[in-house]
Amino acid sequence: MAMPDSARPRPTPTSASYSITVRIYAVPDASVVGRLATAVTEAGGMVTAIDVSESRHDRITIDVTCSAGNGEHSEEIVAALRALEGIEVHRVSDRTFLLHLGGKISVESKVPLRTRDDLSMAYTPGVGRVSLALAAHPEDVSKLTIKGNSVAVVTDGSAVLGLGNIGPGAALPVMEGKAALFKRFADIDAWPICLDTQDVDEIVQTVKHIAPGFGGINLEDISAPRCFEVEARLRAELDIPVFHDDQHGTAIVVLAALTNALRCVRKGLASIRVVVSGGGAAGTAIVDLLLAAGVRHVLVWDKEGILSPTDTALSVAKAELARKTNPEGVTGDLHDALCGADVFIGVSAPRVLPAEWIGDMAEDPVVFALANPDPETDVDEARKYATILATGRSDYPNQINNVLAFPGVFRGLLDSQASEVTTAMLLRAASALAHCVSDEQLNPAYIVPSVFDPSVPKAVAAAVREAAQPPSRVMGDRGME
Amino acid sequence: MAMPDSARPRPTPTSASYSITVRIYAVPDASVVGRLATAVTEAGGMVTAIDVSESRHDRITIDVTCSAGNGEHSEEIVAALRALEGIEVHRVSDRTFLLHLGGKISVESKVPLRTRDDLSMAYTPGVGRVSLALAAHPEDVSKLTIKGNSVAVVTDGSAVLGLGNIGPGAALPVMEGKAALFKRFADIDAWPICLDTQDVDEIVQTVKHIAPGFGGINLEDISAPRCFEVEARLRAELDIPVFHDDQHGTAIVVLAALTNALRCVRKGLASIRVVVSGGGAAGTAIVDLLLAAGVRHVLVWDKEGILSPTDTALSVAKAELARKTNPEGVTGDLHDALCGADVFIGVSAPRVLPAEWIGDMAEDPVVFALANPDPETDVDEARKYATILATGRSDYPNQINNVLAFPGVFRGLLDSQASEVTTAMLLRAASALAHCVSDEQLNPAYIVPSVFDPSVPKAVAAAVREAAQPPSRVMGDRGME
Repeated sequence: MAMPDSARPRPTPTSASYSITVRIYAVPDASVVGRLATAVTEAGGMVTAIDVSESRHDRITIDVTCSAGNGEHSEEIVAALRALEGIEVHRVSDRTFLLHLGGKISVESKVPLRTRDDLSMAYTPGVGRVSLALAAHPEDVSKLTIKGNSVAVVTDGSAVLGLGNIGPGAALPVMEGKAALFKRFADIDAWPICLDTQDVDEIVQTVKHIAPGFGGINLEDISAPRCFEVEARLRAELDIPVFHDDQHGTAIVVLAALTNALRCVRKGLASIRVVVSGGGAAGTAIVDLLLAAGVRHVLVWDKEGILSPTDTALSVAKAELARKTNPEGVTGDLHDALCGADVFIGVSAPRVLPAEWIGDMAEDPVVFALANPDPETDVDEARKYATILATGRSDYPNQINNVLAFPGVFRGLLDSQASEVTTAMLLRAASALAHCVSDEQLNPAYIVPSVFDPSVPKAVAAAVREAAQPPSRVMGDRGME
Repeated sequence: MAMPDSARPRPTPTSASYSITVRIYAVPDASVVGRLATAVTEAGGMVTAIDVSESRHDRITIDVTCSAGNGEHSEEIVAALRALEGIEVHRVSDRTFLLHLGGKISVESKVPLRTRDDLSMAYTPGVGRVSLALAAHPEDVSKLTIKGNSVAVVTDGSAVLGLGNIGPGAALPVMEGKAALFKRFADIDAWPICLDTQDVDEIVQTVKHIAPGFGGINLEDISAPRCFEVEARLRAELDIPVFHDDQHGTAIVVLAALTNALRCVRKGLASIRVVVSGGGAAGTAIVDLLLAAGVRHVLVWDKEGILSPTDTALSVAKAELARKTNPEGVTGDLHDALCGADVFIGVSAPRVLPAEWIGDMAEDPVVFALANPDPETDVDEARKYATILATGRSDYPNQINNVLAFPGVFRGLLDSQASEVTTAMLLRAASALAHCVSDEQLNPAYIVPSVFDPSVPKAVAAAVREAAQPPSRVMGDRGME
């Protein structure tokens, strides 16, 4: 009683993030492993491992690991296993939760502490000499301490991933993950700082107070518009670089991806018409960086419609955004904005863009639908209209992923002991990232490099270091050192 | 022209904390290594390694590593080497500074990040499920994040070691060292937080704001009396344990050492007369813990003389200390306090105690001269009078070292997910620490165990865990879980 292909429900794509291990007790039987695998597959799961972990004459224990599409799907798979004859489901482990047990990062000592002599050099009394030297020469703190390689990953838990205001404790797994990525991709020692306040003054004060031990501040998942003020005030008051990854990390990767998309469709930044959906933290930073890169025509659309300088009801932040964009002062809805546009960049909400509207854009439309986990448009439908399509997801081509930017950016900032993040750094980083994709590699399904390409953080770091050089040094005048 | 032994200057004791490596270029010659070693030894240095690192027909390169007594002594040794014929001193490296280059701790990822699947479990989208679960069940944060094993080592840099108010940047090497010790001795992930403020309100606010990511707070090197208020307010306001190591860590080790000293001299806590020199952070905590342990007669001496409840000129903190001690309301100087006393505990300043005064104490005097690096009394002289002598230094027997306490204390606090530090915990920890020295091992030169004895942090942690158990659980009522 097979259904015709078109009538079958589309299978849910499985993901390792919904990976489970089911421990099963079974009556020993040559067919049992095969029956388990079949049951998982028929339920739409993907088997990734089957281990017989114990075998007795009366019972065998089998661990079945498989990926599901979501939490409900996991339960369906387990139900399918339970329904098999001669099988007992003993325990279901969620591999993602297992991975997070006990936290994902650790602090390790880089120095030996085996003998009294070791202790007397790493701690008292020897450390006292180092401290005295630093009291006399504060400029050496970065050299003789972790400050030279440490970053605080700071959040107030107000805008975590797509999950909203879940607070500092629930945000901690994300910040730990970020710290792990900092180490993995740029050998940086990052530590999560989850703040028990969402008051701008208190956030600024707290970060200022803890700054002496860090070489940089990575702001993360702080909601707009508070994030703008937090960042601006910290940049003004601290002598270490402050980088809001949701803004500037995203902007770098978007500009890099756009640069490569335009290489594909042979258009130039100065001539394109861009529509940005979403005037929050990411949208604002993207607009600023696009303008700095030479884009001249940008419209921002948000729940107020096309942001227009004539709209007096806008918030301060959005009025400022309207002032910088919309050169012709147009008003209207997203469809009005899109007609004839070359590029759509969504950093907003799921499904705001009906795929067929892409057909009303200019020739060779470029669509970045970056809302996570559900993009602004139906990806499979949008493919029919867009020449180039990018999302924030790992299960489609062209994933716009901040991991491409922030590790290299901070590597460059720390290496150059930069005291601030400049627009020149962001532009150079985006350009370096774009050019990690060679002309030979470049095609509409490959406009950003792989996050596992080891040349990416190196290239981004080098670009930031170059931009951090004071002009006199770039000109070769190093005699003053 | 040898001097008679008594006329020779007493050699400066050498320490690994003043260890240097001198790179030497020499004309190749069979005698050169011997001459280098002799020169170092005659200058009072201790050779710990000689490596010929390169040998050419016209020149050999030799690295001579040796310990000196202090910075001047290092220079004398180098001068002695320079004075040798056919020798060129190419470079002098300070091994302690080399050890601190780049900092002493690192952050490492505990999870694999090699594939897209790894990323999707450790970071987005998988981490989102963990965050959502924690938003719904905040009580699981300690289990699924680093909070279950992390400690903030917090200082304002106001009272660092014996160096005084050197500020947060110069304090960082000490806090890193502390973090390294936390890992080495108790597998705890500690991170230094060096504060750019010395205002009590601001310190309290900042620590409260960063607390969500930590399972405990270790306050460090904050000067008295501000440290008392900082600690008291944080204890009242936070739901994680707050421990000021300079106070309570010191108090635990002192009480343990005193317990064992009294085992040696067969006296009881209730009958001894104790003089504490120094009414600061450590002195106050020591007094409190001794009284809690059953000591009934304590006098505190400080620059005001014997602290007496009749002295109306005392600060609030010292008046409180006077009220708790000095049962007979005596006044006078240190010598007055010492006459007939059983125990002297110095946590004050170098050389306040002339050794011969120890002769005026009761029979079998116990002297803890803990000022660092220069004790309250001349140790070699004091040996003639004191039955038991302890210091804070590693180059004499009976080193009173906080490393004996704080790792185990925090291990126990974290294991039991304690929300506070209680006096019962401190007392049990001290008792457990004392009993790491068996009756067979105990003698006047061995009243505290070695910091490298692996049973020490385990025993201290177990003691804290037991004290943290709510009474109903201790009574076996575990059915409620």
